[in-house]
Amino acid sequence: MRFNEVLKDVSTYEAGKPIELVVREYGIDSKDVIKLASNENPYGTSPKVIAKIQELAKNMCLYPDDSMYELKDALAKKYNLESSNIIIGSGSDQILEFCIHAKCKKDSKILMAKTTFAMYEIYGKHVGAEIIKTNSEQHNLEEFSELYKKHGADIIFLCIPNNPLGECLDKNDVYEFLKTIDKNTLVVVDGAYQEYAAFKDEKKRICPKDLIDTFPNAIYLGTFSKAYSLGGMRVGYGFAQNEIIQNLYKIRAPFNITTLSLAAAIEALKDEEFVNDCISKNFEEMKRYEEYVTKKGFEYIPSYTNFITIKFGDKYVSKEVAQKLLERGMIVRDLTSYKQNAIRVTIGKPEQNTKLFQLLDEVLQNL
Amino acid sequence: MRFNEVLKDVSTYEAGKPIELVVREYGIDSKDVIKLASNENPYGTSPKVIAKIQELAKNMCLYPDDSMYELKDALAKKYNLESSNIIIGSGSDQILEFCIHAKCKKDSKILMAKTTFAMYEIYGKHVGAEIIKTNSEQHNLEEFSELYKKHGADIIFLCIPNNPLGECLDKNDVYEFLKTIDKNTLVVVDGAYQEYAAFKDEKKRICPKDLIDTFPNAIYLGTFSKAYSLGGMRVGYGFAQNEIIQNLYKIRAPFNITTLSLAAAIEALKDEEFVNDCISKNFEEMKRYEEYVTKKGFEYIPSYTNFITIKFGDKYVSKEVAQKLLERGMIVRDLTSYKQNAIRVTIGKPEQNTKLFQLLDEVLQNL
Repeated sequence: MRFNEVLKDVSTYEAGKPIELVVREYGIDSKDVIKLASNENPYGTSPKVIAKIQELAKNMCLYPDDSMYELKDALAKKYNLESSNIIIGSGSDQILEFCIHAKCKKDSKILMAKTTFAMYEIYGKHVGAEIIKTNSEQHNLEEFSELYKKHGADIIFLCIPNNPLGECLDKNDVYEFLKTIDKNTLVVVDGAYQEYAAFKDEKKRICPKDLIDTFPNAIYLGTFSKAYSLGGMRVGYGFAQNEIIQNLYKIRAPFNITTLSLAAAIEALKDEEFVNDCISKNFEEMKRYEEYVTKKGFEYIPSYTNFITIKFGDKYVSKEVAQKLLERGMIVRDLTSYKQNAIRVTIGKPEQNTKLFQLLDEVLQNL
Repeated sequence: MRFNEVLKDVSTYEAGKPIELVVREYGIDSKDVIKLASNENPYGTSPKVIAKIQELAKNMCLYPDDSMYELKDALAKKYNLESSNIIIGSGSDQILEFCIHAKCKKDSKILMAKTTFAMYEIYGKHVGAEIIKTNSEQHNLEEFSELYKKHGADIIFLCIPNNPLGECLDKNDVYEFLKTIDKNTLVVVDGAYQEYAAFKDEKKRICPKDLIDTFPNAIYLGTFSKAYSLGGMRVGYGFAQNEIIQNLYKIRAPFNITTLSLAAAIEALKDEEFVNDCISKNFEEMKRYEEYVTKKGFEYIPSYTNFITIKFGDKYVSKEVAQKLLERGMIVRDLTSYKQNAIRVTIGKPEQNTKLFQLLDEVLQNL
């Protein structure tokens, strides 16, 4: 059967390995498997959110309120926006997919950093767009500017802070860059890990309302998957001027998040104390990683997220390290598919991190 | 800002009104609102599934197993297929979206019945495809054949049984039609309500394995939203030859269903007794609708689903009837947007149906 030609050039996203797979393939008991691979919140979901979902589980037969009135209202209040500035997605992933489908077609141009969230490129290829990347691994706005002057772009992706590397642009630099961008270019500011970055360094904080008021061609994306501990529930949001939101809405399918996801997100917004507590612990534990990696003589990228990227240089092969850890029930993310000889490790709970250090010692001794 | 031109012609799907909206707009207590508008299973979700989700609610922070190994394995066993014949979607809606994006681009042709599931056309317009519809409201395969000979088609949609009208093609007629279709045309057999149709009349039963073995250009879509009582959890599936599945997989985003949706679907498949019991009650109650409508002198379309379409002819205006019912806390689906002077009513529980008859009597007397 014939399919669209653009699909020939499309690869599928390599998701982090689930605990179930390690159980199946290596026969390790699920309670002995530690997953530090998908930047899930290791402290679990807020007990208040869990209780709410247990109470509402009986509503699984009912479609969600597709207007998402209550969630949009809560987000609008928190971020000082109008509901008409908001669209909800099945993870913020889905909203970046909407952006690409709304703006791009074959031979449209999409500008991004060399090593950034893989879905930008994958979604771009779905519509046959041309992907333009900087030479630098990390976000380098001078290179972005040069490439933009040379090629133009229908969409620019800025991942602030950047997944999978962890670095983060300063807000002021982002603003200076945005001033130079044509109003017909949609700039996607992916803030999936913004809560972490803003906690660590106020200079990194992007205020969504100020961003979209100052730059009407920008859209801010946020998620409940990381700081809000709802990775499994697939809820993200986009904030932009209503003209953009209206066009994205044309692409959104009805009922694009589940009834329980909607309820969980609404409840999670009520428990900011839990969120802040998790973020605080995250950076306490990250110090241990920085010390460990330095002691071992490897390099790491200073991180503004809930993960850290450890580079093995010419000492070890990251793919082998990740595989040996996997066989011991420790799942981390090998970055070979991102052309990095590095692993990305989610900052876990204290005892999980201690275990990671032990297993990494053991694995490296035997490689 | 400029957006893709095809979006100018895109309208958004009008979802059934949620209970929350009636509570907000008419100040009616949520426990007094009855929703017979979205073909949700009125008997709720299986208690076994509810218990499982309450147990697993703590896993909301974890991404799902993106291979969906266990769910695909269970579906493969039930339908005598291989896992490689299966793709899971956020509702079967999402899989029909995948089909359109895999096969169609601007000016591709999509053939469908005049009055059928609205998303076929909406997704088609997202890619700028040409929508070709039969003159007959209900599925008429002779007209499909004539139009196919005249125009060809990249995709043909057959909704068996048909939403929102309720009629259902015979399996043998579908097979005769499929024999005449070119192998490069993808035929989507949307079986969202097949469990109901097959229960009522064996001649309507489509066996997915036999369908895709006989016609390698066909894909069968099923859902957990209707008979399996998980409308709010957004889980559907597509069965096809692996060549088709592989291409749809290129378009699927990772983690396209939630962790709890995956668990709920797996558990729901284990409780077929609940499903059969609900379907049996559905057709018992449908008899009451047929008697009521006949007594009132209206027409209905004999239905192979969990809803019934009631036509008001020149006696009443369906939009007014639906609105007056809404103000009394009874939500039904007005079909004006489908160009029908009719309402579609989900077959509810006995007491809900009794209430609908009472309120409809009251409303019609005052119109």
